[in-house]
Amino acid sequence: MRKVDPERQQAKRRQILEAAGDCFARRGFHATTTAEICAAAGMSPGNLFHYFPSKNAIIEALAEEEWRDTAAYFAAIDDDPADPLEVVLSFLDVVMVFASDRSYSRLALEVAAETLRNPVVCASVAAGDTEMRDGLAALLRKAAARGQIDPELDPVQSANWIAALIDGVFSRLALDTGFDPAREAPMLRRVVGRFLAKPGRGA
Amino acid sequence: MRKVDPERQQAKRRQILEAAGDCFARRGFHATTTAEICAAAGMSPGNLFHYFPSKNAIIEALAEEEWRDTAAYFAAIDDDPADPLEVVLSFLDVVMVFASDRSYSRLALEVAAETLRNPVVCASVAAGDTEMRDGLAALLRKAAARGQIDPELDPVQSANWIAALIDGVFSRLALDTGFDPAREAPMLRRVVGRFLAKPGRGA
Repeated sequence: MRKVDPERQQAKRRQILEAAGDCFARRGFHATTTAEICAAAGMSPGNLFHYFPSKNAIIEALAEEEWRDTAAYFAAIDDDPADPLEVVLSFLDVVMVFASDRSYSRLALEVAAETLRNPVVCASVAAGDTEMRDGLAALLRKAAARGQIDPELDPVQSANWIAALIDGVFSRLALDTGFDPAREAPMLRRVVGRFLAKPGRGA
Repeated sequence: MRKVDPERQQAKRRQILEAAGDCFARRGFHATTTAEICAAAGMSPGNLFHYFPSKNAIIEALAEEEWRDTAAYFAAIDDDPADPLEVVLSFLDVVMVFASDRSYSRLALEVAAETLRNPVVCASVAAGDTEMRDGLAALLRKAAARGQIDPELDPVQSANWIAALIDGVFSRLALDTGFDPAREAPMLRRVVGRFLAKPGRGA
């Protein structure tokens, strides 16, 4: 009997997801063929099929991975941070670093478009989005308790609007070639900082 | 020779665009067949084909119509409004009214997804986006001159961030079933109002 090496299996899966992610970012999900993914991954169709039965299964796995990464990011945050507002603003900086990576942002847009057609992709993206909004709302609650932000704001609603701004960054990248995330990162901090600040306070 | 009645032609085109827009909103652009569009428009395939040679031509026309509507909205604004900031905030209210229309917002998401695949759709959406950002930047310049907003903000950059927020509203609708545009409209005003306000001013 052939032995299955789980680590080797995992590495192969990673290799396919990275190759496919590059293809989707470069040529779009629909235009990419499985033959192109095989070539990019250096793998036969039979071998690819062993890991992922279809191109849809690959984008579903990519969306799930993104969800897991978001969950891990927020799970790793200190339960009682000294400066919860800065933890929120630092997360925005991280988003802008990802947005600056053209391959990442193109893939994110392809995944977002696929949420309209593929319910499995939609469920993963929505789950990651919920992790992010819950994580942000928890931080905003702590920031309000420490007097860092306007206590009149509803933390859940404010987290939703921060999520809207983050979505909007990726739409800007799709539509406006002049939008440079590296240059705009301080503005995202500013928009969110001013929104959250107690009225009457400078920002 | 058969006479062509331009008004009748225009009405037929409208009828097809409305029927197709409803189908795309309900079932998604890719899942909709031309047969379904014909049935919804009460028209034979030959007749439909006379107006639009393909399903792509229909979504291209819908995207162009949206661009023209945006251009017309901003062209109709007074050149020297007494309260330019309120003109900006009222535009946000209009966006939220459109966002509350489930058929409109689903179609907007389908068109946005198509920008990744169809360069004609992408060009129209980008042109409409430019009209909106230019219109907002002009209003922000006037609002700054009247001392209504922080003069330190760059009007073009601020308009880009308002555009990001508007894009984000539609992403929220795709991902978060609890996001209610009618209830959230005052929050969009608040986020933008606080962002634009002079530091140290209440909001």
